[in-house]
Amino acid sequence: MRRLDTQSPDFSESLKAVLAERGQQSGSVVEPVRAILADIRERGDDALCEYTERFDRLALPADKLRLSAAEVDEAAAKVSPETHEALALAAKRIRSFHEAQLPKDIDYTDEDGLRLGMRWTSLDAVGLYVPGGKAAYPSSVLMNALPARVAGVSRLAMCVPTPDGVINPLVMAAAKLCGVDEIYRVGGAQAVGALAFGTQRIAPVDRIVGPGNAFVAEAKRQVFGHVGIDSIAGPSEVVVVADGANDPRLVAIDLLAQAEHDEQAQSVLITQDPAFAEAVSAAVERELETLPRAEIARKSWRDCGAVITVQNDDEAAEIVNLFAPEHLEVMVENPRAFSAKVRHAGAIFMGRFCPEAVGDYVGGPNHVLPTSRTARFASGLSVYDFLKRTTTIETDLEGLKKVGPAGARLAREEGLDAHAMSLSERLK
Amino acid sequence: MRRLDTQSPDFSESLKAVLAERGQQSGSVVEPVRAILADIRERGDDALCEYTERFDRLALPADKLRLSAAEVDEAAAKVSPETHEALALAAKRIRSFHEAQLPKDIDYTDEDGLRLGMRWTSLDAVGLYVPGGKAAYPSSVLMNALPARVAGVSRLAMCVPTPDGVINPLVMAAAKLCGVDEIYRVGGAQAVGALAFGTQRIAPVDRIVGPGNAFVAEAKRQVFGHVGIDSIAGPSEVVVVADGANDPRLVAIDLLAQAEHDEQAQSVLITQDPAFAEAVSAAVERELETLPRAEIARKSWRDCGAVITVQNDDEAAEIVNLFAPEHLEVMVENPRAFSAKVRHAGAIFMGRFCPEAVGDYVGGPNHVLPTSRTARFASGLSVYDFLKRTTTIETDLEGLKKVGPAGARLAREEGLDAHAMSLSERLK
Repeated sequence: MRRLDTQSPDFSESLKAVLAERGQQSGSVVEPVRAILADIRERGDDALCEYTERFDRLALPADKLRLSAAEVDEAAAKVSPETHEALALAAKRIRSFHEAQLPKDIDYTDEDGLRLGMRWTSLDAVGLYVPGGKAAYPSSVLMNALPARVAGVSRLAMCVPTPDGVINPLVMAAAKLCGVDEIYRVGGAQAVGALAFGTQRIAPVDRIVGPGNAFVAEAKRQVFGHVGIDSIAGPSEVVVVADGANDPRLVAIDLLAQAEHDEQAQSVLITQDPAFAEAVSAAVERELETLPRAEIARKSWRDCGAVITVQNDDEAAEIVNLFAPEHLEVMVENPRAFSAKVRHAGAIFMGRFCPEAVGDYVGGPNHVLPTSRTARFASGLSVYDFLKRTTTIETDLEGLKKVGPAGARLAREEGLDAHAMSLSERLK
Repeated sequence: MRRLDTQSPDFSESLKAVLAERGQQSGSVVEPVRAILADIRERGDDALCEYTERFDRLALPADKLRLSAAEVDEAAAKVSPETHEALALAAKRIRSFHEAQLPKDIDYTDEDGLRLGMRWTSLDAVGLYVPGGKAAYPSSVLMNALPARVAGVSRLAMCVPTPDGVINPLVMAAAKLCGVDEIYRVGGAQAVGALAFGTQRIAPVDRIVGPGNAFVAEAKRQVFGHVGIDSIAGPSEVVVVADGANDPRLVAIDLLAQAEHDEQAQSVLITQDPAFAEAVSAAVERELETLPRAEIARKSWRDCGAVITVQNDDEAAEIVNLFAPEHLEVMVENPRAFSAKVRHAGAIFMGRFCPEAVGDYVGGPNHVLPTSRTARFASGLSVYDFLKRTTTIETDLEGLKKVGPAGARLAREEGLDAHAMSLSERLK
């Protein structure tokens, strides 16, 4: 963990090191992924079955790749009623917040008599990638599937690898809750290829969302343009801005909640209180003694963590804006006043009783958020990812008389005569 | 030009050929672009000057790369008052439509007592790429710069190559109209690299927009993630749905207005009237005899053009949805009723007096639109490209009591104990 102080002469150099990109992708998967995608595009289900046998040790005929309703029900039934209830509460709240996001169409006639509009329509079909094995998070299924549902996407196709044939009950329960009934037990670049290009049994989709390993991320990068994709997530991060009135142990736990994700995750504390900074650092060490995922969290905190002491709110806010963090916790007396100074952040959690985990599961806003400083220009997943806009212009001869001559002049200046004629010949 | 008829037995095969991807990018620029970007990142302005000398035959010291206000004024003054007026009308209308797009923030307290929000903020800095030479379109400057301005972006940096030192007066006039005063006479991958990574004299931006050649497109692809980019445009296309009551010559001119862009552009007529289809085809040939850009338009029409006869509106709409065209002209008796059947299109032009050229220059909606069937999932440029969203959650202990236990349960099911503790320890 690095300690920084804005009063120290080497502060900006140290901050640069903390801000440096983490977990840079190696290029080594580019070629293998290219080969897999080409093979899926060429041979479809045959290739899909072969890769599934090779990577997931699961030999199935193509007509068994899709899970039957009975298989889904059987798996989902293994989830306890309490967990079902927790998933349902999360789903209800996520659905409700994303409904509040739904944008309105535009339709008006302007002073020149042209009727202008913009209408939102949903995508026809979306592919949802869900990682298998240990990183299979039911919360991610809700966060990816529900915004698509709220946007009005009629077809949602899910791909989830089932290594050795093991089906994750939580993922199936979450899928059922979102009304996803088209589920394929395939994963990796081959699943992305099947969703993008289609196979004999899997119809192609228009956009693919959901997290995955390096192969999945690279496959999404390669099919981008042919279909839409969500952003490619880097290591996760949190910045906690906290004053000395907080319980150091709670702040330490929040920092570790980020650090336990993976060794490249980044947790940063910003405070004006040096004694509090010390107390939190000590509390992190104590909690690491008993935390189940301490091995991962310790490496993350050691290599990527930082504690920064600042002189005032403005300094704190400016550093937050440089981080443009995926998650920002604001644990100060007036969190809303501080948040107003923040220009770049994926999500902000305000108050002493609002840790990031509220937003990871049950808050309502999406937990798929821009990482690695991309909150400078990118946003979290939302209904907008599953909608697109069509603009409309309607005019009669009177309207064309108002704007056509100017249009024709500009077209001629650009050397596009047919453009100009399409306007001027209608005005004759 | 291909002739298709939905009644013909080989219709779907023929349609597939028309829908096939045009103008596929060759991979040959990947390595040269990678080298240029690395060089700009490493050596900054020195490299930028060297590439500008090599590619644009323009040897300038680094402090002259930025155009002075006097140089911009001098160039813009060469534009005629009539063209200035046309640009001003276009700018006024584009600004007004994009103001109508500005979204509203969300802020509400829900039934569980959590205050949820989503706020839109503008990007800090945007880079605007403008091609040099023949393809320097002042309308593109307006269409890219004005949405950024309306969104509230404070810094707009423009790069435009000036081969042999020749400055385009129209581009300078358009830039002035948009209040863009930070203009660099650099282009190609080296300009994209300078905007993305910054040099000694050019501060880095958060997003790069604007069209360019294959080098520029590949450079944008490679810097994506480090900064945001707009979509990478493929060849342009129009689908015209027209009934027999139209003047065949006007429809022919509209088809040629698309075809004159480049040899890969695609113009498609869909009609229920076979005699009208013949008349339009004949009119295209006649117009080609006098059109200045006939050489390009003839190749485009021959290789990519199509005339499709259909039985009814539903067939026409279904084919439009398969094309998901960048531009759709609807020249029928009730264009709004037909448009309601269209799910996928970048922009729709309705009525017999509303050719696509209205939207290219003076309509108001953006002319940067999704090409190559990507309107299935993508949208035209808008204020949204220059804004990002931050979600907010605020709660006190009472709210946490409502949602925390469910969150902690899900966190434990996912094996993330610090996540669970960050909730449960606050509830103790």
